[in-house]
This record gives sequence, C-alpha cells and structure tokens, in this order.
Amino acid sequence: MNHSTHTETSMQACIAACSHCHQVCLQTAMNHCLEAGGKHVAADHFRLIMNCAEICQTSANFQLSGSAFHRRVCEVCAEVCEACAVDCEKIGGMDECVAACRACAKSCRQMASVQH
Amino acid sequence: MNHSTHTETSMQACIAACSHCHQVCLQTAMNHCLEAGGKHVAADHFRLIMNCAEICQTSANFQLSGSAFHRRVCEVCAEVCEACAVDCEKIGGMDECVAACRACAKSCRQMASVQH
Amino acid sequence: MNHSTHTETSMQACIAACSHCHQVCLQTAMNHCLEAGGKHVAADHFRLIMNCAEICQTSANFQLSGSAFHRRVCEVCAEVCEACAVDCEKIGGMDECVAACRACAKSCRQMASVQH
Amino acid sequence: MNHSTHTETSMQACIAACSHCHQVCLQTAMNHCLEAGGKHVAADHFRLIMNCAEICQTSANFQLSGSAFHRRVCEVCAEVCEACAVDCEKIGGMDECVAACRACAKSCRQMASVQH
Repeated sequence: MNHSTHTETSMQACIAACSHCHQVCLQTAMNHCLEAGGKHVAADHFRLIMNCAEICQTSANFQLSGSAFHRRVCEVCAEVCEACAVDCEKIGGMDECVAACRACAKSCRQMASVQH
Repeated sequence: MNHSTHTETSMQACIAACSHCHQVCLQTAMNHCLEAGGKHVAADHFRLIMNCAEICQTSANFQLSGSAFHRRVCEVCAEVCEACAVDCEKIGGMDECVAACRACAKSCRQMASVQH
Repeated sequence: MNHSTHTETSMQACIAACSHCHQVCLQTAMNHCLEAGGKHVAADHFRLIMNCAEICQTSANFQLSGSAFHRRVCEVCAEVCEACAVDCEKIGGMDECVAACRACAKSCRQMASVQH
Repeated sequence: MNHSTHTETSMQACIAACSHCHQVCLQTAMNHCLEAGGKHVAADHFRLIMNCAEICQTSANFQLSGSAFHRRVCEVCAEVCEACAVDCEKIGGMDECVAACRACAKSCRQMASVQH
C-alpha cells in the first residue's frame, strides 16, 4: 500500500470513529444521562459529553470535506474524547461511551501526527 | 419597496431571529438549566431546549445558503420554538429564552408562508 | 417483535441511513464536485447537495436525542433527499450519492409516517 | 471591572464575532462564490471558506455551552479564519468576508491566550 492510499484508509477509519463517537455521546447524554439524573446531569459531566459529541461531528466534517486543517481539529478532538472517556469511566455505567471515546481519541491522535 | 427587496429584508430578520434563539437556548440549557437542576434537567424539557437550539441553527443555515427548502425548515423550526416557549414559561425563570423562542417562531411562520 | 422494539430498530436504521447520506453528500460535494467543476458547481446543484448533507445531520441528531419532533424533521429530510437524488442522477457520475439519498429518503418517509 | 466580568464580556464579544464570521462565510460561499464561478469555486478556496464557516459555528457553540475546551477550539478557529482572510483577499471582491475573518481571528486569538 503506497503512502497516499494508506492516508486515505486511515482517514476513512478516523471519520468512522468520529461519527460513531458523536452518535454514542449524543445518544448517551440525551437519553441515559437525562433519565438517570444525579451525577449524570452534573454540569461538568454533561457539558463534556455534549462538547465531545460536537467536536467529533466537526472533526468528521473537516475530514469529509478534505480540509487542510483536519489535523488541527483532530488534535483538539483527541483531547476532548480522552477527557470524556476518563469522566464517563469515573461516573460508571457508560462502557459503550468510554470505548467509543477511547477509540476516537486514538484514531484522531494518529491523524494529527501524520506528516504532510 | 419591491417584492424581492421585501423578501430579502424579511430573510435577514429571520436569520437574525434564528441565530439569537439558537444562542439563547444553548446558553440557557448548558449553563442555567444544568446549574439549577431539578425540573430544569427533566428529560423532556432539556431535550426540547437542545432540539430548539439545533433546528434554529439549521434554519439559519438553510436561509444563509439560499436553499429552495428554507420554508420547509422554517415551518418545523416555528413548531419547535413554540413548544419550547410554552415549556420554558411553565417551568419559569427563563424569560429571555421564552422571548427569543416566541420571536423566532413568529419570524419563521412568516417566512414559511411567503409565496414564491 | 413488539411495537416499541420495532420502532427502536427502525430508528437505528434511519439514523444509519441519515448519517451515511450526510457523509456521502458532503464528501461528494467538497471533493468530486469541486474538482469536476462545470455542472457540478452550478449554484442550484451545489446548494442542494450541501443542504442535503446538513438536513441529514440534523435528522440523525433529532433521532439520537429522542426528540418528540423527529418525525417532522424526517419528513423534510425525505423531501430534500429525493430532490437531491433526482438532481445528481440528471448530472450523472454520482451513483453512490443517488443511492444514499434514495435510501435515506425511503427510511425517513417511513419514520415520518409512524403513528405515535 | 473585575477579572471574571472582563472574561465574560470578552467571551460575549468572541461569540458575536464567531457567529458573524460563520454567517458571512456561509452566505458568501453559497451565493456570491457559486454565482461568480471561476476562481471563486476553485476547490482550495471553496473548502477553506466552508471550513471557516463550520469552525466558527463550533467555536461559538463551545463558548455558549461553557466548555472547558473553548480556548483550544478558539486557537484552531483563529488559524482557519486567518488563512481564509488571506485567501479571500487574494481572490478579491469579498471585502466583508475578509473583515469578518480578520475580526474573528483577532477575537479568538485573545480568547485562546486568556489564563484560567
């Protein structure tokens, strides 16, 4: 596999990871968290999971549109996803969300570090 | 003022109303509601105010991009804004949000009913 | 399969169709269309494919967040997708986009007609 | 004016700058650029102005929702806005867009550098 095909494949994987993480975070926040209440609707936690959903959407959209700035957005996305994974793990009962955030953080860190 | 100038002016006003309502709903939900807790984070209320923020953003974007479907989005936006105004009024303490939703609903209903 | 499980399954399928259509439209517009030029960047076509990407994103988000208004957004989404499919087919060379729009329109029409 | 009031005022100004830049970029791209054609629909230019519109929307939303990561998004937003201003200036005929991008870049750089 040559360099550009490899980049293309990595990007499709990263778009899929961002899109999955966006969906899981939004669905978890707006259904599981709102219905569970308590620590699940604590301001810091709820903000983080909603912000994670939004930056994943933006990161996917930058990659889909071939933006020259996609690595910069992936870098921020990885940080937000990592923080969201840690927070969801601490509260508990959100294993799917933790896994989606960890996978997206890893994929975005790889995209962010690719040389152009 | 001729017909097309009038339409143009109405659309700029509607974009401004949608953008303002998006901002007020998002800021109210993610700060006031999360910090107040109780009825402010009840699932149905919180979903409605967040959905209102999102459809206002989409409605503004359809008008900004000159979409042939902007009236259809304005129509749905007006319904969501109206429901959100009623719900925020019932819970109380969110007067700015009620006013922004009412103004946006009115402006979107007007846009939706313009003949093309 | 009982009624609510059936609804749940249909919604997951519709979220997947909207998310796929969003991705294909955005990627096609911002890469294939911009690079092909000519009819591919005609104002009406380009607006339609970008608006289709946006309403699909909003439709997916309304369903993911459990919105009471998701059927209304699905209804508009189906109309935009249908129009986009027809336009992409007329211009030609965008078979993946036509298929994604047709599948999303069908799934959204089904969601819009579900009794609640 | 104390520190937190000053931060609050700066953030409201930055939200307004991001929202204005989002609107001007989206409206310019989808109307002026698509209708002018030629250099205005060159892939690199069109991608940049659309990406600028999107990151401004995300930057405004992170600030509106009180995100702990808003400075990181503002930093990336400032870079994209700066690049977009340079590109629009080179092509010409988009003075409002150049001004909106420059103002947003300046405001976002200030937000990004605030000590917390």
